[in-house]
Amino acid sequence: MSEGEARDEPRGATVSDFTERELVARIAQRLSPSPDWLIVGIGDDAAVVEPERNRVEVFTVDALVEGVHFDRRFVPPDAIGHRALAVNLSDLAAMGAAPRLALVSMALPADLPITDFDAIALGFAGLAAAHRIHIVGGNLTRTSGPITVDITAVGTVKRRQALTRAGARVGDVLYVSGEIGAAAAGLQMLRHDASTSNSCTERYLRPQPRLRVGTLLGRNRVASACIDLSDGFADAAQQIAAASGVGVEIDAATLPIAAGAREWFTSRSQNPVTAALTGGDDYELLVAVRPRLRRQLAAVMRQADVPLTRVGVCVATPGVTVDGVTMPGGYGHFRPFDKLRVLPGDVEGR
Amino acid sequence: MSEGEARDEPRGATVSDFTERELVARIAQRLSPSPDWLIVGIGDDAAVVEPERNRVEVFTVDALVEGVHFDRRFVPPDAIGHRALAVNLSDLAAMGAAPRLALVSMALPADLPITDFDAIALGFAGLAAAHRIHIVGGNLTRTSGPITVDITAVGTVKRRQALTRAGARVGDVLYVSGEIGAAAAGLQMLRHDASTSNSCTERYLRPQPRLRVGTLLGRNRVASACIDLSDGFADAAQQIAAASGVGVEIDAATLPIAAGAREWFTSRSQNPVTAALTGGDDYELLVAVRPRLRRQLAAVMRQADVPLTRVGVCVATPGVTVDGVTMPGGYGHFRPFDKLRVLPGDVEGR
Repeated sequence: MSEGEARDEPRGATVSDFTERELVARIAQRLSPSPDWLIVGIGDDAAVVEPERNRVEVFTVDALVEGVHFDRRFVPPDAIGHRALAVNLSDLAAMGAAPRLALVSMALPADLPITDFDAIALGFAGLAAAHRIHIVGGNLTRTSGPITVDITAVGTVKRRQALTRAGARVGDVLYVSGEIGAAAAGLQMLRHDASTSNSCTERYLRPQPRLRVGTLLGRNRVASACIDLSDGFADAAQQIAAASGVGVEIDAATLPIAAGAREWFTSRSQNPVTAALTGGDDYELLVAVRPRLRRQLAAVMRQADVPLTRVGVCVATPGVTVDGVTMPGGYGHFRPFDKLRVLPGDVEGR
Repeated sequence: MSEGEARDEPRGATVSDFTERELVARIAQRLSPSPDWLIVGIGDDAAVVEPERNRVEVFTVDALVEGVHFDRRFVPPDAIGHRALAVNLSDLAAMGAAPRLALVSMALPADLPITDFDAIALGFAGLAAAHRIHIVGGNLTRTSGPITVDITAVGTVKRRQALTRAGARVGDVLYVSGEIGAAAAGLQMLRHDASTSNSCTERYLRPQPRLRVGTLLGRNRVASACIDLSDGFADAAQQIAAASGVGVEIDAATLPIAAGAREWFTSRSQNPVTAALTGGDDYELLVAVRPRLRRQLAAVMRQADVPLTRVGVCVATPGVTVDGVTMPGGYGHFRPFDKLRVLPGDVEGR
C-alpha cells in the first residue's frame, strides 16, 4: 500500500472495516523483500525455510500486553510494534545469536484504528529491516481485551558460541553494556507528561537490542555468562547468580547510570542507584568475563562501538550484594505473577 | 509436581498466588524428558536447538482467544491447551511436515484458578507427548482481558516433499480426510447443553491433527495441493482455488458428513451440507491429487488408516461450486475482521 493509497482510507476506519486477508496484505507490504532462504512465505498454512548450515538455532517468544507492558496513552503504536520485536531480539542477543526470522501474532480490539494497525506493523517491520530479519508468518485475531502482540523470534549461532546464564565462575568480572536507568526514567517522564521527548523516553519507547555486542561476545568466546536486562539489572544479576551457582557483588559507584536518568531520579527524590537497578526495559547485556579475557573484551567493545563497564565480580557467597548490602530477591521472575511488571520500571507506582 | 503435592494447594488458589518461576516449573514438570537435540531448554533467555539434517523447516503460529475461539462455559481447560496446540499441528500436517517443537505464550487473567492453569498445561503437554513434540520455551504474562494461548510450532520436511495450497491443476481430483461437520455440530451441542459428551463434542474439544496423513502425502508426493479445514471446508476450497488459479466443483452427495452431525443438523432444521461446509474446526485435510496418482493415494489411506473421500474436481472456471451453485466468498479469511470466528462453526449464531 503506497502512502498515496493510505490517504484514501475513510477517516475513522478501524481494523474491523477490513478482512483478515487485507490486514495481512497491509503488513506484507511493509516488509522487506523475501530472502533466498524463504521457500514459502506469508499466505500458506505455514512458512517453509531453508535452515542455515553449521549453526544451531535459538528460539524465543515474548508478548507485550496493553496495560501490563505498555500504556497506549503515551506509547505510540509504532513503538508498540518496535518494542514487541526488540524484547525478543534482546533475548537472542543475550544468547550470542544472530537473528534470522520472526512470527508475529496479534490479538486486536475491533475498534483499533487502521492507522494504528499500520503504525504497529511499521514499528516491527522497521526494526526487522534494520537487523535483516524476515517476518515469515503470523496470525491475527480479534480480542475483547487489550492489544496483545506476541512475537516468536529465531536466530542462529555456532554451537560452541552460544551464551547462557549458567557459565559464570567465582572470580569472573561483571560488565554491563551501554547505560542503565534511562528506560525506567523515560517511563516515569512519560507518565508525568506524555509529550516528553528526550533520550530517556526514546530509550523506553524504542530500545535497541544489543545484537552486535551479543554476537561478538559469542564469536570471540569472551563471555562465560550473559543475560539481557529485560526485567532490570537487579533481576538479571540474580538470574546469573542462581543459574551459575555463584554470588554477585556490585559496586554501586561504577554503575553506568544514564546522565538524564540520574538527573530525573534525583529531581524526583529517588535514589538513582536503586531506581536504575530495579527499573526494567534497558535491554542492555550483563556479561560475566574471566579476568584473563579482559583484552578480548576490549576488542569487542571497539568493534561493537558500545561501552562495556565493569560493575562487579562473581563471588562464592550466594546472593547479590550492592556495596555490601544484600538485595532482596523480589524482582522480575521472583515477583508474584499478578504483580508482574504492572508497568515495567515503574518504581514509584507499586 | 506429583498428584500428591497438588492436593496440598490451598483451595481457590489462582495463578496470582504463584511466581512466574513457579508457574513455569509447573508446566515443565508436565513435559516429556528433553530430547537429545535440545541443547538449552526452558529457563534461559532462549532455547537452543540442533537443526535436523537434510530437511527444511516449517513455521506456524496460531492463537486461541477466549470469547473468540472458545467459551469457557463449555470448553474445559485441558481442551483449551489441547486445541491451542492441535490447530498449529494441523497447519504443519497441511504442509506435509513432521512436527518437532513448539513455544507456548500465554496471557492469563490473575484470577485463573491454578487447577485450570495446570489443566491447560496438561492439555498441550499431552498432545505434544503423543506426537513426540517438545515444548522448548514459552512466555507467561498477566492480562486484564481473556485467556490468550499463542503457540508457535515448528516442523521439518524434505524440501521436495513440502505441500502448499498452490499446486492444484485443472483435472486434479479433490479428496478430504476423515469426516466433516462433527466439530461444528459438537459446538452447537455444547452451546445447547454444556454437559453433552459424544463423538461430535469430543471432535470439537480435542481435534486430532492429521499429521500421519500429511507426512505420508508429502513423502509419497501424492498431493498437488493441500490445506487444512481450520476455517471450514468452504473456506479451504476457496483458498486452494485462489492459490492454485483453478476453480473447484464439489459434489454434495459425496461429502463425508459425520453421521452424528448429520442427525443433529437435521434435528435442528439446518441443511447438513451447508452446515458441514461452512462449519469450522474439523482440522481435516483437503487434498488435490492428479488423477493418475489414485493408486498411490489409496496406499496413503491404508498406511494412515484414515479414509480419504473423493468430493470434487478442479476445473478451469474460477470459484467454488457445490452441485453447480456458486458458493459466496464470505467465509474465513474473506470475512470482515471483527466478524471473524466469533465462535467458530457457529452457523446459527451469526
